[in-house]
Amino acid sequence: MEVVNVELGDRAYPIYVGAGCLADLGTRLAETGCGKRVAVVTNSTIANIYLGPAVASLAGAGLDPAIIQIPDGEEHKNLAWLAFVYDRLIDAGVDRGGALVALGGGVVGDLTGFAAATYLRGIDFVQVPTTLLAQIDASIGGKTGINHPAGKNLLGAFKQPRFVLADVDCLRTLPRREFVAGLAEVVKTGAILDAELFALLEAELPALLQLEREILVRVIRRCCQLKAIVVAEDETEGGYRAILNFGHTVGHAIESLTDYTTYLHGEAVAMGMVAAARVSHRLGFCDDATVRRLTKLIERCGLPTEVPADLGRDAIALAMRTDKKALAGTIKFVCLEGIGTTRFERLTCEEIVRYI
Amino acid sequence: MEVVNVELGDRAYPIYVGAGCLADLGTRLAETGCGKRVAVVTNSTIANIYLGPAVASLAGAGLDPAIIQIPDGEEHKNLAWLAFVYDRLIDAGVDRGGALVALGGGVVGDLTGFAAATYLRGIDFVQVPTTLLAQIDASIGGKTGINHPAGKNLLGAFKQPRFVLADVDCLRTLPRREFVAGLAEVVKTGAILDAELFALLEAELPALLQLEREILVRVIRRCCQLKAIVVAEDETEGGYRAILNFGHTVGHAIESLTDYTTYLHGEAVAMGMVAAARVSHRLGFCDDATVRRLTKLIERCGLPTEVPADLGRDAIALAMRTDKKALAGTIKFVCLEGIGTTRFERLTCEEIVRYI
Repeated sequence: MEVVNVELGDRAYPIYVGAGCLADLGTRLAETGCGKRVAVVTNSTIANIYLGPAVASLAGAGLDPAIIQIPDGEEHKNLAWLAFVYDRLIDAGVDRGGALVALGGGVVGDLTGFAAATYLRGIDFVQVPTTLLAQIDASIGGKTGINHPAGKNLLGAFKQPRFVLADVDCLRTLPRREFVAGLAEVVKTGAILDAELFALLEAELPALLQLEREILVRVIRRCCQLKAIVVAEDETEGGYRAILNFGHTVGHAIESLTDYTTYLHGEAVAMGMVAAARVSHRLGFCDDATVRRLTKLIERCGLPTEVPADLGRDAIALAMRTDKKALAGTIKFVCLEGIGTTRFERLTCEEIVRYI
Repeated sequence: MEVVNVELGDRAYPIYVGAGCLADLGTRLAETGCGKRVAVVTNSTIANIYLGPAVASLAGAGLDPAIIQIPDGEEHKNLAWLAFVYDRLIDAGVDRGGALVALGGGVVGDLTGFAAATYLRGIDFVQVPTTLLAQIDASIGGKTGINHPAGKNLLGAFKQPRFVLADVDCLRTLPRREFVAGLAEVVKTGAILDAELFALLEAELPALLQLEREILVRVIRRCCQLKAIVVAEDETEGGYRAILNFGHTVGHAIESLTDYTTYLHGEAVAMGMVAAARVSHRLGFCDDATVRRLTKLIERCGLPTEVPADLGRDAIALAMRTDKKALAGTIKFVCLEGIGTTRFERLTCEEIVRYI
């Protein structure tokens, strides 16, 4: 079991990474000093596999978990299902001493975190991410929220969990395509923050793709460590944290233009990263070798690298303008200077699409 | 114009108290450095009187305010109207650089603050309270939220405003009964925190009831100052801030049992304060003279002092048990030790009703 600490003063918390550590959930939660009445929020798919072990662990530690099950899928990360969670929490008699357990991927984590941020003006919650994307990204850093018909994550709050418990064994039941999509954020982490991690990925990708425990724990722990440093530096995305948006500006536009149905988030980010590297190169910030090295690793993961030709560049620019991070039509774009180094550049949406 | 500072580190903010200061709204908001596109949230009643001047002030400072109008009344402080505010904010194109202006009483302030806490994971907002209760209490301290069919303020967040602008001239159009109800929280502030303020109220109540500007500004400024100290001490109600709940435990139970239709919040708190003083006396914490002095001032305000006889004591105890602050059937009850001094005592709901 590895422990990474997110240093956020009185909101600091540990991330536990290990193989089989779901069994420790109850003990870990009881250690936080929460009341007996807690609630596990999960989706139907995850419930079939991991709800039993999770509930057994909680009950074994003397806790009394209520179960709140939402349907699987991003389309349920909305105000209606948030209201459902509120209702169930009230019915279950969860009080201020209680805690919520988010058992699932990013959708469950985001919705549960937002409920925890706003139920009774905020109660504790913990993240038990079961997807690669959630383990290295979504569960860390306190971004919670729901979608609005007008856009993703338009409603939400910053709310740090009491801890994150990432059991790499959960990745064995994750659909292959989702695992690979999660690798996009792993590659991103290396590309923007850590040349050594990037090199490790280049060397150990086959083992990672075969879900070898040792390399999984090592890579996930390192990704968590790096994200924890960024989050500790800038908890509420006032500035530096925006570095994590590398590849996301174009990625979000692709997702939005394809109605979030064609590509998984990681797949869109993969294309977005290659696009961002090209923009960086064309603006003279990085050499061509950097672009090629990034493109190659993304390809080897089995991820797409080219923005689909049928998406018009004007449409992409327009989609970027309506991104919630856009200010007056410009975007604080994350450029690559080399593997492991970045710079921010405020660009218009038109400038960005010219070079992708 | 008087200024009170709420000392909350990087969330610190000023409270401006004055006669006619609504005219300064635009300048004050522009000074915060917000973007041009802002939104004023208000209700139909307040809109008729103060929306014109507020919008003129904002426009005069170069801001471009969208108007979001909700119906008047506590019954609209719910998830449906919150969703309405979200939709309008998105339609109006308010981005992260924007700000919300809560123009109205506690309902508008609470709902707007919650929207500001959760729209795009949090944007700035300012409070322009137009009722006495909101000027001295609801607008200060960052408690925001909405009601749920199961109880008041069950959903919400802590979100500090950038500033509070309390124009005492707004109280001239406030219905008399609401003004008097607001006095209950003024009396509470003196009773729990400041014997001098309490004595001032005893001496100057007639002038206050006649809405004399000088005494209004003086009393409201002092109440804001005291609340600011409590909030600075304990921003998220971890402990000390609960002192402000004096009179509220029984008050909330009365409101809940009468479906929030018979008594205004301040009226229920008035009865709750007398009840709490009696409990304090019966437990040996304060003398009888203190109970009488408090009861007398409340009476002179024109507020009720006796818990209605037709509300059964068992029903009151049950209502208290479902209060969101109750933990395992006990309540951290605020007892009076004398005018200006209090102590916390953990009591069962049954103990409390025995003495009211």
